[in-house]
Amino acid sequence: MTQRSPKRLRIAIAGLGTVGGGLIALARDASGPLSSVVDIIAASARTRTPAREAQLGGAVWFDDPVAMAALDGLDVFVELIGGSDGPARLAVEAALARGVDVVTANKALLAEHGAALAALAEANGAQLRYEAAVAGGIPAIKALREGLAANRVTSVSGILNGTCNYILTEMEQTGRGFSEVLADAQRAGYAEADPTFDVQGLDAGHKVSILAALAFGSAPDFAAVRCEGIDTIDAVDLAAARDMGRRIRLVAHAALADGALDQAVRPELLALDHPLASVFGPTNAVVIDADPVGRITLVGRGAGAGPTASAVAADLLDLAHGGERPVFAAPAVALRQLPTAVASPAARFYLRLRVKDRPGVIAAIADVLAKHAVSIESMLQKPVANAASVPVILTVQACPEEVMRRAVAEIAGLEALAERPCLIRIEG
Amino acid sequence: MTQRSPKRLRIAIAGLGTVGGGLIALARDASGPLSSVVDIIAASARTRTPAREAQLGGAVWFDDPVAMAALDGLDVFVELIGGSDGPARLAVEAALARGVDVVTANKALLAEHGAALAALAEANGAQLRYEAAVAGGIPAIKALREGLAANRVTSVSGILNGTCNYILTEMEQTGRGFSEVLADAQRAGYAEADPTFDVQGLDAGHKVSILAALAFGSAPDFAAVRCEGIDTIDAVDLAAARDMGRRIRLVAHAALADGALDQAVRPELLALDHPLASVFGPTNAVVIDADPVGRITLVGRGAGAGPTASAVAADLLDLAHGGERPVFAAPAVALRQLPTAVASPAARFYLRLRVKDRPGVIAAIADVLAKHAVSIESMLQKPVANAASVPVILTVQACPEEVMRRAVAEIAGLEALAERPCLIRIEG
Repeated sequence: MTQRSPKRLRIAIAGLGTVGGGLIALARDASGPLSSVVDIIAASARTRTPAREAQLGGAVWFDDPVAMAALDGLDVFVELIGGSDGPARLAVEAALARGVDVVTANKALLAEHGAALAALAEANGAQLRYEAAVAGGIPAIKALREGLAANRVTSVSGILNGTCNYILTEMEQTGRGFSEVLADAQRAGYAEADPTFDVQGLDAGHKVSILAALAFGSAPDFAAVRCEGIDTIDAVDLAAARDMGRRIRLVAHAALADGALDQAVRPELLALDHPLASVFGPTNAVVIDADPVGRITLVGRGAGAGPTASAVAADLLDLAHGGERPVFAAPAVALRQLPTAVASPAARFYLRLRVKDRPGVIAAIADVLAKHAVSIESMLQKPVANAASVPVILTVQACPEEVMRRAVAEIAGLEALAERPCLIRIEG
Repeated sequence: MTQRSPKRLRIAIAGLGTVGGGLIALARDASGPLSSVVDIIAASARTRTPAREAQLGGAVWFDDPVAMAALDGLDVFVELIGGSDGPARLAVEAALARGVDVVTANKALLAEHGAALAALAEANGAQLRYEAAVAGGIPAIKALREGLAANRVTSVSGILNGTCNYILTEMEQTGRGFSEVLADAQRAGYAEADPTFDVQGLDAGHKVSILAALAFGSAPDFAAVRCEGIDTIDAVDLAAARDMGRRIRLVAHAALADGALDQAVRPELLALDHPLASVFGPTNAVVIDADPVGRITLVGRGAGAGPTASAVAADLLDLAHGGERPVFAAPAVALRQLPTAVASPAARFYLRLRVKDRPGVIAAIADVLAKHAVSIESMLQKPVANAASVPVILTVQACPEEVMRRAVAEIAGLEALAERPCLIRIEG
């Protein structure tokens, strides 16, 4: 009764971008651990090139990933196409429906259709693994699903979008403005040509909805994530953060309180000793608070060919070594449908306005806050020579988030406002 | 072909200290995940008390853990006795020899006898799991064994002894000396009555030898770990570290260079942006450098009933869900016996001496360093009124570790030395 050898897996790879390339490199490295457990029997990509075919050796080429999912003798379908719908979804559904295990890096797909895919996988005895979908090379999915499986998680938060963290760090270190740094990041390949998904917090929102599902045994509920981005933040805010002895980070957050699920992505002003405050550049981090383990922090590279391929390969090695886990911590039929929390707990807030430089503006702002019973803690307006608008920076005492939002919405409507207000939660 | 349910495990617990108590609490929590997969059928401890028996419900009491390992129908033997030999070893061997899976928190046992136990486990088709043996609640074993399994690890380092980190942090924050803080830590329960094992770096050495085995697919080789502790460090060193913009941490380190394994536990002067520099109090941390994932840092509580029970429970849940892994990254028969590196790569060093206040002492020290071709980078001797001895602090330019050690050994023999030299590697 000696140890079983790992099962050898016949895999098909859909999507041959940077991650696909990184995975093929790992699988082709004869002295590495992946090559001894996987055979790439097929591949698919939008564009068929001689270079790609050469890279694939004897693997069968498919133009259609859905057709590839029907291939005879396939053990694992690796989905690296991306997108919540379209060919990625169809191909994953086709594979799971016939009991073929799926490994995917697709956070949008899981965030939007995770519960249905989990049900499909479990009904057909297939495993659905997605370590690469959240926080790149950090084994955060495994930590939550297995390493901390005996715990009751109370909250999960993290820096889950490397593009935003890179931009914030650059702004912090160079004093430059958002648009300028974004343009540089695009040129350097750290940001997409259309950065909307990243800078508005939607990508981090997808990821945190997956972490929440694993942490709380609930169906992923991306629609319930309140997503804000970093596109209202400018150099003046980073300078103010420094003056406050804090740093601004785009924090993705999920917590269970009184049976309701609070999920949000938002900029936060973090104390320097907060574990997420010292995460710089494109790095990702995940902080898990759980009982009885306490706080666990995981830090690493959140994107790129190497880290993401490492995560995909870890899922493949898991499948080769056997063992089954429900897709999201609980069997698909038992996933909780949690009510959505209206807001996070009360907090102090930072509010930066840009107002037309004329008498009465400060009074008008103070009036609105007073009307909503929000107490100003500090206010700063620096003299600016010959400017059409001037920044006004306030902090307010702890108040309910929804109250603060209503007050800010009213302030945003004041005629004297020169641009959208920048509201940031103060944490720690 | 729907999903299999996890297997229900009949477990026996040997050792009912704080960790055993924490585990029983998790297993008895009817709404928690552990209670649905384990039945505690037997338990054993040195002292049988009515309170313990009551806590165990219907479990059979054994005075002898080895006899308990022979119990019919046992699925998993949980070893929480501790110690590299004696009843812990005998009981674990007895369980593995009959194909019963073992979960243990015993780092000394694995560090000293890991390769033999892995061979015994694999020969009998038993799993040997030990997440709780290193870094408490941090799922570091799982991260290395599974999450980063497709990587080539180049180095693993960490803060693996919470007692030492607590003492260093307290000294740093209060300016008090080693003995005073140690005595306080003993009163507060953060340090053992006999602290030798912790403060001399042996406990961290056990742990790093286990991490090295997993990282490099080699047999655990504790005898090859060069262990230093924190017992030569005093308040003057922490003040000097602060003046240098650094912090002192006891770092456990394993790296593979030119096919040789370099394992050491030693105080290091870390730059403030080093991931281990911002680990405070009894917290543990593990930093893994690997290709292609890059650097992964894991932080969490390294000891205590809750975190350690969380790790033991994770191993049990793994066994319930199936899947097999070799004990140390490679099958026991294929574990590498790596040659031992004589020293770590060249580095800058900090040397603090306490010398009798008389003419010629500095010249004598400088002569020894010059003879060994060690270049002094800075030297500081502060005036101390009416003292029998005065501290002299030097830093030296990067030089081979073995050269620096020879020089320091010679300096330690100078008649003017008032106590053992304190030598600290400067990193980052």
